[in-house]
Order: sequence, then structure tokens, then C-alpha cells
Amino acid sequence: MKFCNTCGSGKMQFRVPEGDTTPRFICDTCDIIHYENPKLVVGCIPTLDGEVLLCKRAIEPRYGYWTLPAGFMENGESTEEGAVRETREEANAELTGDLTLFSIYSIPSINQVHVFFKANLKNRNFSSGPESLDVRLYSPQNIPWDNLSFATVKKTLRHFCDEIPGQTSQVHIGTIETSIRKSKP
Amino acid sequence: MKFCNTCGSGKMQFRVPEGDTTPRFICDTCDIIHYENPKLVVGCIPTLDGEVLLCKRAIEPRYGYWTLPAGFMENGESTEEGAVRETREEANAELTGDLTLFSIYSIPSINQVHVFFKANLKNRNFSSGPESLDVRLYSPQNIPWDNLSFATVKKTLRHFCDEIPGQTSQVHIGTIETSIRKSKP
Repeated sequence: MKFCNTCGSGKMQFRVPEGDTTPRFICDTCDIIHYENPKLVVGCIPTLDGEVLLCKRAIEPRYGYWTLPAGFMENGESTEEGAVRETREEANAELTGDLTLFSIYSIPSINQVHVFFKANLKNRNFSSGPESLDVRLYSPQNIPWDNLSFATVKKTLRHFCDEIPGQTSQVHIGTIETSIRKSKP
Repeated sequence: MKFCNTCGSGKMQFRVPEGDTTPRFICDTCDIIHYENPKLVVGCIPTLDGEVLLCKRAIEPRYGYWTLPAGFMENGESTEEGAVRETREEANAELTGDLTLFSIYSIPSINQVHVFFKANLKNRNFSSGPESLDVRLYSPQNIPWDNLSFATVKKTLRHFCDEIPGQTSQVHIGTIETSIRKSKP
């Protein structure tokens, strides 16, 4: 952040504002404080007949790796709406019924929180969206564990595969100290 | 967003970038796309001997109304760390033991997601932080329902009071279509 997006000044400082405890970008011309906060990534575990829908990424980071449909939550939507939208965009897939909150992971190193919902696929009419190379249903026995995109996807799928059918599970919550992407540059 | 914070140009457009579906602020000089996403608010339901700690707000919005300790999640922390920090900042209170995820509410109208955790207060050594006028323990029978700050706080406290002691509850999740603040201008 080199310039103030309110007044255009290039006199930006990075310091702790009065009454605050965290350093922020502050415009030395118009005094506006520019806050930066973590972003939410929302996604789905779309299932049909016990299988889970995965997408092969057509974009960086982790091009060519398999992922659950997920992406940055947008302004003006709920977490569930975001998860439904991402499933539609990445897999041209429709969901049916309510979404069930399944997992939440904080990743402080990249200022993100990932939220995944369990959801039922409406049917087998799905295909690769612009951000996917391939979209497939995988049985829990055939998940491509060595070719998954992110730590949060791996943990979420591990919990999903460990679930006892018919039993309501607690929401899985945790913190990823370092993302797969950062640990394997 | 009137100026580009990367190059300082005042030639900002608000349009849908190529390959996207949502309008964004785009710099017409350096082509950078400025994404804006929802913010996370993280907070606690701090309890001791069946009572819950509430803070009387010393800041706008909702000055003078009672709230659960909560605030914007910061970069570099987990959701739980943010909730602990806010409890310390607003109530000078320390927590003990693990936090338990309790509720998540999306508020699309103001681009926020509020997350609350149940937590045990360490002791009765608490006091008003700079953003609080007063800090008190309330029994479920004495919650000041008509003087609560936000819809998400009210819903969270309602679920908390409806809990059956000793029984593990599911995480409460929902969407607030309009915040209390907007409906009572």
C-alpha cells in the first residue's frame, strides 16, 4: 500500500495509531487509517452416493492439484451462498438441500480462514468451469491424497472419510501454522 | 476507493474484469484489480458459574448498549486468538481452557461474518477496557435483552440461554438479512 486510496497521497506511514495496539497503514496527508483483515475462503464437500466431487485446478497456486470447490467469499453474500456459487463456478454443479457446516481452519501465515460445508449434489450434470481442468467424483477409498491442493482441503477430506455414516459429527476447527504451499515452495 | 493504492492514479473504474462475474475497482493506469471482501468479527461468550460476561459499549455504533466481547479479526491470528484478544482488550478478562465454536452469522448487508466461541472465564478479575463503559456478569434470567448491541449478539445469547446444561450443542449458523443497527437508524 504505497498510496492513499482516499486522497491519492504518497505519504503513507506504517505505525500504531493512537489508542490502537497494531501497526496500520496511515495516510500522513488525510489521516485515514487503512485497516487490513483476514479473508474468508468458503467451499463445499459436494457428495453423491457416498462419493465426493473434486476439481483439478486450472489456476495457480497449485495448478494441476485436486481441490474441493472453494474460493474467496464475496461482499453481499452469506458463507453458504458463497460456497454454492463457488461450486457452480468451478464445477458447473448444482446442490440440493441444506448445507451443513463441516470445518473451519485459520491460516494466520496467509491471513485466511477457510470454511467448508457438506452438501448434496443434485445430479451427475457437472463439468469443468474456467478454473478447473477436470471435475470428478471420488470414493473415499480413491481420494488422490498425494495430489491435493491445500492443507485445509486435505484435513477436511480426512475428517469426511473418517465420518461414521448416519452419525452427526461436530464441526472440525483448527489452525494451520504453515500452508502446504509455503512449506513446499 | 478514489485512487489506486499501488500506483496513486486517480483513474479508477468500477467494472467487471475479464473472466470475472463481479464488478471491482480497477486501476485504468496500472490495471491492478482491487478486491474487497467480507470481514470477520470474532468474539466470546465468557462464562463463570453459569453467568455470562457482557460489556457496555463505550464506542459507536451502539454506544451504551451491552455486547459480548468481540471485534474485527486481525491479520496473523486465528479466530480463537482473535476472540481471546478481544476479551482481554474490552474486559481485561482472562480465559481458561479451550474455546468451543458456538455460532456463525453472515450479515451480507454490511459484508461481515460474526463468529462466537464459548469460553470459561479464569476468575472475577475483570474490568472495563478502553472500549467499554462497564463490564458485568449476567445470569441467563437477567440478560438485558432490550439493550443489546447487535442482532448476532442477541441470537447468540438466546441460543446460549436455551442450552441444556451438560449437553453438547450443535454450532448455530445463520444469516442476518438486516442488522439491528440498520433497521433502527
